Amino acid sequence: MRIGLVGTGNVARALATGWSRAGHDVVLGSRSPKERAEAAELKGFTLVGVAEAGAHGEVVVNATPGTASVDVLKVIDAADLAGKVLVDIGVGFTEGGDLSHPNYSLGEEIQAAFPEARVVKTLATVDAVVMTSPESLEGPATIFLSGDDDAAKTVTKGLLTDLGWPDASQLDLGGIGTARGQEHFALLFVGVAQAIGSYEFGIRVVPQGTVA
Amino acid sequence: MRIGLVGTGNVARALATGWSRAGHDVVLGSRSPKERAEAAELKGFTLVGVAEAGAHGEVVVNATPGTASVDVLKVIDAADLAGKVLVDIGVGFTEGGDLSHPNYSLGEEIQAAFPEARVVKTLATVDAVVMTSPESLEGPATIFLSGDDDAAKTVTKGLLTDLGWPDASQLDLGGIGTARGQEHFALLFVGVAQAIGSYEFGIRVVPQGTVA
Repeated sequence: MRIGLVGTGNVARALATGWSRAGHDVVLGSRSPKERAEAAELKGFTLVGVAEAGAHGEVVVNATPGTASVDVLKVIDAADLAGKVLVDIGVGFTEGGDLSHPNYSLGEEIQAAFPEARVVKTLATVDAVVMTSPESLEGPATIFLSGDDDAAKTVTKGLLTDLGWPDASQLDLGGIGTARGQEHFALLFVGVAQAIGSYEFGIRVVPQGTVA
Repeated sequence: MRIGLVGTGNVARALATGWSRAGHDVVLGSRSPKERAEAAELKGFTLVGVAEAGAHGEVVVNATPGTASVDVLKVIDAADLAGKVLVDIGVGFTEGGDLSHPNYSLGEEIQAAFPEARVVKTLATVDAVVMTSPESLEGPATIFLSGDDDAAKTVTKGLLTDLGWPDASQLDLGGIGTARGQEHFALLFVGVAQAIGSYEFGIRVVPQGTVA
């Protein structure tokens, strides 16, 4: 599958590596591809402009900072997003460390800004390392999906499987409004990371009952 | 230990049952104890006024709705809160279902309103059933603590142990500011509950590594 990843940070690079390994045709989209072409951390990646990444992808993935995401995605020609699966990974923080979308979510903002795209929020509750190596955790963790379009969530589930998240670890929360839960978890994520001294952890939903 | 539980809802009743079973001397504080004395669900509990519950408790516990908590706790004589451990369980929601404390927390609000109390936020991430029967889950879940006073957190940890939460399941997140993480998790809690069809689940922090 052709994947256009918007962003060049550690999340974008980790996902590009993971999906390339699974056989997908991945490009990274940057606002300044010429200036960034020599960056050491981008060696080995296919670096293009944001508009080109949007045109390239059968699936477009937002891996930019949440406060900039909508402006960056607007660089893509609207026709190149219409009908496409738009996977959103971002979480927005203010400079003071507060959530930039209190009682709202970036996922909803993106769906509202690009109504013809089929937005799926996922991977917002883990860091770049765990995103692409869930098997490095000491046991199974849960990864969440939010989106209004079931077919788009099915495509996204396949992409999560390609990163190593088994079906049983994927929990569909419902419509794009449930992106709020994924994004607001960021505050607990930061607290746990500081308490255990590592960003590399997942959370597992533990239901009642006994393991068969 | 004498525990003054402020509130008479299902959380307050579950905690009163759990801590009474562990041998503590528990009263429930209501704003209208006379009117509520005949309520079927309160049979068997010691029901007093809010001020009396505050005076009774060596530990005072807030189990009231988050939007009302500060006003209710103000009924307690300030001298009856000074120096005491004040365990806060509440989460505030608006009538529309939004968090009432975006980019803030009830825990911080209570600590600011009662600076002489030693506030510890905990148990905000699970429902009343799981709070008092963590062993009903199919595996260990994590329970969080936030507060500025280490001795108050040690007392609270003992009370969590009495409810069935083993030491290894208790994660101290740090100061009361980290209550934001526990409270904002409520949005993901609601999403997961709707997805799995039950409020009775926990979350486990899963670190990297292998289980010994």
